[in-house]
Amino acid sequence: MTFPVVGMVGGGQLARMTHEAGIPLGIRFRLLSDTPQDSAAQVVSDVVIGDYRDLDTLRDFARGCDVITFDHEHVPTEHLRALEADGVPVRPGPDALVHAQDKGVMRARLDAIGAPCPRHRVVADPADAAAFAAEGGGFPIVLKTVRGGYDGKGVWVVHSEEDARDPFLAGVPVLAEEKVDFVRELAANVVRSPHGQAVAYPVVESRQVDGVCDTVIAPAPDLPEERALEAQGLALRIAEELGVVGHLAVELFETRDGRVLVNELAMRPHNSGHWTQDGAVTSQFANHLRAVLDLPLGDPRPRARWTVMANVLGGDYPDMYQGYPHCMARDPRLKIHMYGKDVKPGRKVGHVNTHGDDLDDVLERARHAADYLRGTIVE
Amino acid sequence: MTFPVVGMVGGGQLARMTHEAGIPLGIRFRLLSDTPQDSAAQVVSDVVIGDYRDLDTLRDFARGCDVITFDHEHVPTEHLRALEADGVPVRPGPDALVHAQDKGVMRARLDAIGAPCPRHRVVADPADAAAFAAEGGGFPIVLKTVRGGYDGKGVWVVHSEEDARDPFLAGVPVLAEEKVDFVRELAANVVRSPHGQAVAYPVVESRQVDGVCDTVIAPAPDLPEERALEAQGLALRIAEELGVVGHLAVELFETRDGRVLVNELAMRPHNSGHWTQDGAVTSQFANHLRAVLDLPLGDPRPRARWTVMANVLGGDYPDMYQGYPHCMARDPRLKIHMYGKDVKPGRKVGHVNTHGDDLDDVLERARHAADYLRGTIVE
Repeated sequence: MTFPVVGMVGGGQLARMTHEAGIPLGIRFRLLSDTPQDSAAQVVSDVVIGDYRDLDTLRDFARGCDVITFDHEHVPTEHLRALEADGVPVRPGPDALVHAQDKGVMRARLDAIGAPCPRHRVVADPADAAAFAAEGGGFPIVLKTVRGGYDGKGVWVVHSEEDARDPFLAGVPVLAEEKVDFVRELAANVVRSPHGQAVAYPVVESRQVDGVCDTVIAPAPDLPEERALEAQGLALRIAEELGVVGHLAVELFETRDGRVLVNELAMRPHNSGHWTQDGAVTSQFANHLRAVLDLPLGDPRPRARWTVMANVLGGDYPDMYQGYPHCMARDPRLKIHMYGKDVKPGRKVGHVNTHGDDLDDVLERARHAADYLRGTIVE
Repeated sequence: MTFPVVGMVGGGQLARMTHEAGIPLGIRFRLLSDTPQDSAAQVVSDVVIGDYRDLDTLRDFARGCDVITFDHEHVPTEHLRALEADGVPVRPGPDALVHAQDKGVMRARLDAIGAPCPRHRVVADPADAAAFAAEGGGFPIVLKTVRGGYDGKGVWVVHSEEDARDPFLAGVPVLAEEKVDFVRELAANVVRSPHGQAVAYPVVESRQVDGVCDTVIAPAPDLPEERALEAQGLALRIAEELGVVGHLAVELFETRDGRVLVNELAMRPHNSGHWTQDGAVTSQFANHLRAVLDLPLGDPRPRARWTVMANVLGGDYPDMYQGYPHCMARDPRLKIHMYGKDVKPGRKVGHVNTHGDDLDDVLERARHAADYLRGTIVE
C-alpha cells in the first residue's frame, strides 16, 4: 500500500478536525503536539509529543512523513527551510507561509500584486504612529505587531499617541493601518494544490464579538454577485501569486463605499470555513488534505441555501455536555463540534453548524445552541 | 467534564467510522480490537488489544466505559449478560442482540409479532430439508446456519437433498427458508434510543453481487410511497418490539407480488446505511452514537435527490491509492471511504459515495469509481 503519511504540526482543533477528515481517505495521519492533552492528541493514534520550535524535534517528526502541514502558523521560517532542504515537502512552504506569519511581509506583498488593502505602513514608535494617523484622517488607527497575533491579540485600536505605547513594548515591529469604516467582515476561502488547481468556497459573512469570530453565515447575505466574484477572484489570485498550497482564508472588510479590502490571511483551515463541514460538498479540512497531497480537489459548493456556524466559547459552565440533550432535541439538524478542550472563559471550545432555507431561523438555531452550551441562556 | 466514554467492541470499519463520527461530539472513544492493525485500531487513540470472547478481557475493557456498543454481533450472549449484571450499560442489550446473532431466534420472534417473513423452519438434516422443500413448491430452497454467517457465508441455495449436506457439517442448527421470488432487495434503516425515540432513514435499494452488497441507492427508485412507509413502519416496529438500542438495519425482499419480507436483521451501523455519511443530514454512525448515549437523535433526511454508495472490493490491485487522482478528478462530488485494510480479492476494503439529481449519472459515477479503484477498469 502506498497510502501516504501526512504529518501535521500542532495539536489544536484544526488538527483534530483534519484528522477526522483524513480517516475516510485512508491516509495515515501523524501529529506533532505539545502535550498529550491537546485537542487533536486526544483522538489521533500516531502522536509525537514535542516542541515545534526545536529543529531536531521537527526533523525527527518529519522522518517517514510524506508531507508536512500545519495546525498553526508559528513554526519558524528557518526551520521550514531546513526541512525543505532535507527534502521534506512542506505545504504550505515557507515562502508562502511567511505572508501569514508576518503582517509586514504580507502587506508589502499584497501591495506589490495590487491587492486592495487598508492604508498601512510599518511604524517605528508612538510618534511615528501619530504621524501615520495625521497622514490620513487622524486617530483612531489600528496598530498590530507584525508577528504573533491572533483572535484580537496583538491588535490595538489607538486613539492618541499616548495610547500607542503598548504595541511597542514587545519589541516586535509594529504595523499601522487605517481603521477601516467597514459595514461587515467577509471571508473568501480557497484551496490550492501544488500543480495549481484551486477551488473557491462561497464568500461568507463573519461576525466578530470583541475581536473574536462569533458567527459565520454562508453565503454572505445580500452580497452582490459581482462583489462575491471579485472577492473569490482576489483570494484565488493571492493563493496563486503567493504560491499557497492548502487552504487559504482571506479575511476581508466590506467598506461602506462598496469595496473589499484584505484584512488578514491564514494558510490553514480557518474558523470562517468550519461551516463547510456540514454545509459544503467537500469540507475545508478534506480539501486541505487533498491539496497538500496534490490530489484533485473536491467540490466546494454549498449543500443548503443557508448554513450558519456559531462558535462555542467557554463561559461559566465547565461542562458543555450537559447542554447536548436540550440542543439536539431542539434542532435535529444541529451539528455540534467540540474540541475536547478545558473550558476557560472566552476560549473557543467548540462550534455548531446548522442549515436551512430561512436565514433568520437558521441564525436563531445556531445562536441559541452556542449560547445554551456556553450557559449564557438556560432555556 | 462529563463527556462520556463509549466503548466499542470490534476493530472493523464500522468502529473506524463510528470513531470518526464521535470526534465532533467530543466524546471519548475506547476500542477493543483483536490486533493493532485492525481497521479502527489504526485511527483510534484509546485502543485495548484483546479477545472479545474472553469475559475477563471484556470486563477489564468495560471498566471506565459509560456504555458498551459493538462493531459486530459475535460477542457471546452470556458475556453480555455478565456485563449487564456488573452494571455496565450494553447497547444494544443481549435480549435484543440475540435476534441479530441467531437467525432461528430472529424468525421465531418475527413470527410472534406478525412481521412478514419468507416461509421457514429449523431443519434437522438433509432429509428434513427435503421435506421442507416439498411442503412448499419443492427445491430450490435456502439453508442458513443460524449463527455465524454474513456476506453470503453460512448461506446455501440448495437444489436437492444431496446438495443439502454441507450446511449441516458445522454442527450448528440449520434454518430452511423458501427461496423468495424477489424483484430486488431493500433495506429499512432505523435508529432507536433507550427512552424510545426513533428515526427512520429513507428506504434504500441494495444490489448484491455474489451475495455481497455491491451498490446501494438512496432512496430506492420507483418505490411506491405506501410501500416505503410500510417498510419504515415495519423496521420501527421491530426495533420497538425487540428493544433495540442503536442502529437497526432490516434487510428486505421486495416480492414480485408487491410485498416486503424480512431477510436479515443487523443491530449496528450497516453497509446499507453507509450512504448516510454523505447523503443524510445525520449519518448512521452519528445517530448510533447518539442512541447508545441516549441523546436526542439527529435528522435522518436525505440531502440530495439521489445518493449512491458502491462498495470497493479487493481485486488484483494491492494499491487502492493509485486510483485516487483519476477518481477524484473525474467526480468532484465523490467521497472515498477507505478502511485501511489489506487488499484481498473480494474483501470489502472501502466504499464510495456520490450524489446528484440524475440517477443514471450518479450510479455511473459511483460504479466507475469503485471499479477503477479496484482495478477492474483502467479508464
